[in-house]
Amino acid sequence: MISIAVDGMGGDHAPAEIVKGAISAIREYSVKIILFGSEKALLDHCSSPEAKSFIEKGLLEIQEAPESIGMSESPSVAFRKKKNSSIHLGLEWVRDKKADGFVSAGNTGAVLAVSTFILGRIDHVERPTLAAIIPSQFGPFIMCDVGSNVDCKPRHLAQFAIMANHFARLVLKINTPRLGLLNIGEEEDKGNTAALEAYQMIKTLPLNFVGNMEGKDIMLGKSDVIICDGFVGNCLLKFGEGVEAMFGSFFKAEAKSSLRSLLGLLILKPSFMKFKKNFDYAEYGGAPLLGVNGVSVVAHGKSKERAIKNAIRMAIETVKSDMVSEIANNISTTFESLQKEPVS
Amino acid sequence: MISIAVDGMGGDHAPAEIVKGAISAIREYSVKIILFGSEKALLDHCSSPEAKSFIEKGLLEIQEAPESIGMSESPSVAFRKKKNSSIHLGLEWVRDKKADGFVSAGNTGAVLAVSTFILGRIDHVERPTLAAIIPSQFGPFIMCDVGSNVDCKPRHLAQFAIMANHFARLVLKINTPRLGLLNIGEEEDKGNTAALEAYQMIKTLPLNFVGNMEGKDIMLGKSDVIICDGFVGNCLLKFGEGVEAMFGSFFKAEAKSSLRSLLGLLILKPSFMKFKKNFDYAEYGGAPLLGVNGVSVVAHGKSKERAIKNAIRMAIETVKSDMVSEIANNISTTFESLQKEPVS
Repeated sequence: MISIAVDGMGGDHAPAEIVKGAISAIREYSVKIILFGSEKALLDHCSSPEAKSFIEKGLLEIQEAPESIGMSESPSVAFRKKKNSSIHLGLEWVRDKKADGFVSAGNTGAVLAVSTFILGRIDHVERPTLAAIIPSQFGPFIMCDVGSNVDCKPRHLAQFAIMANHFARLVLKINTPRLGLLNIGEEEDKGNTAALEAYQMIKTLPLNFVGNMEGKDIMLGKSDVIICDGFVGNCLLKFGEGVEAMFGSFFKAEAKSSLRSLLGLLILKPSFMKFKKNFDYAEYGGAPLLGVNGVSVVAHGKSKERAIKNAIRMAIETVKSDMVSEIANNISTTFESLQKEPVS
Repeated sequence: MISIAVDGMGGDHAPAEIVKGAISAIREYSVKIILFGSEKALLDHCSSPEAKSFIEKGLLEIQEAPESIGMSESPSVAFRKKKNSSIHLGLEWVRDKKADGFVSAGNTGAVLAVSTFILGRIDHVERPTLAAIIPSQFGPFIMCDVGSNVDCKPRHLAQFAIMANHFARLVLKINTPRLGLLNIGEEEDKGNTAALEAYQMIKTLPLNFVGNMEGKDIMLGKSDVIICDGFVGNCLLKFGEGVEAMFGSFFKAEAKSSLRSLLGLLILKPSFMKFKKNFDYAEYGGAPLLGVNGVSVVAHGKSKERAIKNAIRMAIETVKSDMVSEIANNISTTFESLQKEPVS
């Protein structure tokens, strides 16, 4: 049975929603969960008969982690000073093969730093990268990177393309993922220096590269994977969240402002729900950090029960797909053409 | 009377909508318009009694420009090869003080290149920059740069901040514009190399710097000006347009799918119109290129009559505010602290 180590202390709604998500996952999937964190705090949320029975059956285990890393702590400081955090200990279990994968909704920077340090990088991978699965009207797509690498060389973008391609193919089950490069124009000669050079590298790789994607194309289903540096990826991702929030607050205010609007909104509710469901990040819960020697899934800090359950499912799927070995086995070959470039 | 040279051949709806916009502007404002382009094509759209009377009164003038630059032509090639384009000739009139300002909805890259070449840069300005006025629920804000400078040094971002501040203050009449720096976190120590260094420069300038703005903050009215490099600015701007289009197409499809949705949408129409009006780019029409020795307003390629009229209003306001002289007179002082940095 697959076992997943879960950071019980990470995220805005920890530990209550994390424990709920873990219990949901055990109920729905064939999985064993090891929760890391304050034993007392975690046990407080395990008082239901179902939770107790899972503990008795050995499907739910709690491991004391005396430290926890706050959401706004400096990742580099926390990484060095809190070696007994729930993130460190959970990832050590993965490194030591006592668990098959790790899930955290905690401090993203800390999860990335500790994952890279404890699990190590896959050979040839210079920069592990954080992909996000973004729901859209045309189905989910992957954006990579979304914040772990804010200064990228063209070669790094090409490496992201290779890794995100494996992720899309093996975990999201997209046969021949269409890869696009985020840029300011469709033409090959458009873009900043990094995008221009990355374009030339990616087009030589054995990938289904469909060229440049402009900002307006992002939500239109033109590619399954969009490659960009983590600075612009992060700005876009958060901008999207902001637009959604703004949209919601506008119509809430409208509903209060007139009976007519309230009536219209009530009638349209099914449409709004359908629209919203298209963009429900909780549907995927999280994404594995690509390029490290093990499965480490980063979930959204706002994750509640369902998002955590789905992040655990993502970890299970990633383990089952053997994505880490696939990347390790194939990356040296696909990297050959890139390795010829001088490491600048 | 202020006179504005207008590119009659630029934009997706040229020349018909450009001529209409020019006539609207003459009707509403105290302005003389000189249209540059194919005399025959432009005159074809000037057959109304109103247009004829404007021509007779000397309020509307047509200047033959034998060449025009296509929307997808390479700006650098067009810039060199088409010296008799409507963009070149219109800007020459501004340089030669025969017109006070220029407006074009044509090939943005070409307008930028030709404006910089013909009008010249203001002393101390290294990179003229394209700002966009973005409508939002909380009123308009400026995003700068949005595509003219895709590889920016920190110093360039600081220069954008100074110029955009003058623009916001003088043309948009915001007393003490709040300036934000687009970044991936609120904290001073977050960001890529360019953002980190730009933060340190901008905070030393005599500006109302309110710190980093994350993607989610962009639409929330937290600042009047958002500074970013042209790559990320362009991606965000187009992403926003894409989201708006996606939103529209979703609800159009819903209206067709069920009577209930159609009814709800009809009832909610005033709300939707109100929402849409918040994001109507045509309300501002265009923005002046900042940092050149003259007024050159870049309008959206999709501009129709109203957007062109408003872009002309923007040119008039910019001329009246004497923004170009204000930037020229103040920038040397405010640049002193930046000039100490080695030009890298």
